[in-house]
Amino acid sequence: MTLSKDHNTAGAGRIVISVDAMGGDHGPAAVVAGIAHSAKKNPELDFLLHGDQPVLQKLVSKRKILSGRCEIRHADDVVSMEDKPSQVMRHGKATSMWSTLDAVRAGEATVAVSCGNTGALMALAMIRLRKLPGVNRPAIAILWPSRNPQGFNVMLDVGADIRADAKDLLQYALMGVSYARNGMELSRPRIGLLNVGTEEHKGRAELKEAHELIRENAERGNFEFVGFVEGGDIPGNVCDVIVTDGFTGNVALKTGEGTASLIGDLLKQAFAFSPLSRLASLLAVTSLRRLQKRIDPRRVNGGVFLGLNGTVVKSHGSADATGVSAAVKLAFELAKSGFGDKLAARVASASAQTQDAATSGAESAQEKEQNP
Amino acid sequence: MTLSKDHNTAGAGRIVISVDAMGGDHGPAAVVAGIAHSAKKNPELDFLLHGDQPVLQKLVSKRKILSGRCEIRHADDVVSMEDKPSQVMRHGKATSMWSTLDAVRAGEATVAVSCGNTGALMALAMIRLRKLPGVNRPAIAILWPSRNPQGFNVMLDVGADIRADAKDLLQYALMGVSYARNGMELSRPRIGLLNVGTEEHKGRAELKEAHELIRENAERGNFEFVGFVEGGDIPGNVCDVIVTDGFTGNVALKTGEGTASLIGDLLKQAFAFSPLSRLASLLAVTSLRRLQKRIDPRRVNGGVFLGLNGTVVKSHGSADATGVSAAVKLAFELAKSGFGDKLAARVASASAQTQDAATSGAESAQEKEQNP
Repeated sequence: MTLSKDHNTAGAGRIVISVDAMGGDHGPAAVVAGIAHSAKKNPELDFLLHGDQPVLQKLVSKRKILSGRCEIRHADDVVSMEDKPSQVMRHGKATSMWSTLDAVRAGEATVAVSCGNTGALMALAMIRLRKLPGVNRPAIAILWPSRNPQGFNVMLDVGADIRADAKDLLQYALMGVSYARNGMELSRPRIGLLNVGTEEHKGRAELKEAHELIRENAERGNFEFVGFVEGGDIPGNVCDVIVTDGFTGNVALKTGEGTASLIGDLLKQAFAFSPLSRLASLLAVTSLRRLQKRIDPRRVNGGVFLGLNGTVVKSHGSADATGVSAAVKLAFELAKSGFGDKLAARVASASAQTQDAATSGAESAQEKEQNP
Repeated sequence: MTLSKDHNTAGAGRIVISVDAMGGDHGPAAVVAGIAHSAKKNPELDFLLHGDQPVLQKLVSKRKILSGRCEIRHADDVVSMEDKPSQVMRHGKATSMWSTLDAVRAGEATVAVSCGNTGALMALAMIRLRKLPGVNRPAIAILWPSRNPQGFNVMLDVGADIRADAKDLLQYALMGVSYARNGMELSRPRIGLLNVGTEEHKGRAELKEAHELIRENAERGNFEFVGFVEGGDIPGNVCDVIVTDGFTGNVALKTGEGTASLIGDLLKQAFAFSPLSRLASLLAVTSLRRLQKRIDPRRVNGGVFLGLNGTVVKSHGSADATGVSAAVKLAFELAKSGFGDKLAARVASASAQTQDAATSGAESAQEKEQNP
């Protein structure tokens, strides 16, 4: 099956997302169910689906909504959760993950989505899509439930690289600004640099240096720099984008997830304690569902790899159809906003500037992002 | 007022805690209410109370339970939350915080408790109590609600120092073992080293080195080393003590607190949404209180400074009487178990060992801790 001719025409405003159907905990059925749901919600959306042809064919043919909108690309092999990134880089050519990324590399799709092994996906994305000119370390950005009007903060890096120097942190800030502007429609995002205190004299040397660099770029980059923020501000409302190195970001992300999960379980225990509390939980069920919906990780599913020639959305390995659909929705919004090109222009502009050789070309490219 | 003679006799099994009555958000009234509560619960407990004599005199005289059990030491000055540690170190001699620590230095009390400025308290404790022989960087340890049978994990360092090399991390592990054994009565604590993945090849160089060092010391130190753990294990049940540097630990602590606080607020919002949900919340009130009690930070109030000649319990600045009482309870348990001496022996033993010159004296000192 190939995409219908009229669907496939870029000029007709179609958005094509390249989706890895394999490698998630729930297998290709959850992925196909997820993209079918997204297809229903967004009529402009088409798919390139990578994986086992016979299996996918059968699953896709059951979904009328996908008819003519989903082209299957066969891949013999699958990257498992246990595979080491280095092995996949050497021997992964026949995997659905490789094929998914290569469709973006070839320009057939603008954004890739995969539920597979994060380390392998990042490693493959690095060699297949390559880093954007001017980017030293790509980053993974996630959305975090917060007290913001938009309900979420962006945090990056949450684990692409365990190191980051001051210039890397500046690039994360710029990439985070682009993401917040295009993925969350914030015209002037507020950026915070994660530290152990908000006073300017605190923290490691690279953080003080990054503080200077980001501050210097704020006006030109059309964002607000709120300075140092603390762990408590990640779910807070003092900024929209939290910049940190991948080690700290990964620990913070997993600590927050673990704490939320513990509280959820304790809440269940509390309500199961006695007959009266079980009755109360029946009456409270709508309220609890409302809370769950607000903090449901499936609804903000999708870490985004930033800093590559092409955008990659990493869905949770445990994503079910709802989770996959959320990741596809994010991919769709980023593709539709022309995020990839805008991010590239922004990084190129800042890179030119930090080399004290800002060209008028980079200037106008950045202008384009601010006034699309 | 001085401690009654029979109370003051060390031989009579009395435990004296040195308490800074000033510098907390709720002022000395909350501190006096807190120690009065503790005095009721623990008849062996006496206090040295530091701060404004007339104010404290008035507050203490209202509490019969403190009669003859609380000696007031006047201090003219108070360390405020805004004071810089460096200033307090130079000009803080007349503060209640200084006086509180000096009572431990002089051996009049075994443990100090303060709700004041953390940075100033750490800085003052460093110069007044000095580091234990063999300790390079002291650490702050906290208790974190977890899925453990005991309901809490120990995490250190959560902010005494933003740096830690492999040897520091080994010392944190040994200090954490001592704390878990004496503060939580775990005979063979499980130690985890915080990283971004559990595979041995992952993470920064100093973490791989620390992994080796801690593993080598596990048998001799009579603890179990579970290896690398992730952020999600901080509230989990794979280990009892989480070892990390003060930067990562501080971010994790504040992220977890912030996430818990956000969920609490969203829960309230969910229950206030409609008349039916408000009715449900009335019925659910006991269940919710049960949950709150389980994760109430006031009940695990108290970061403990480890690695000094004397133990210091840092209570939350916002601690009310319940919070102060929880901090005093922790101080009491640590004092009663002879924690300070045991910790010193443990660190000395490991220090001797890492210098390849373990003496029989250190050996037997450690033995004493394991079989008290």
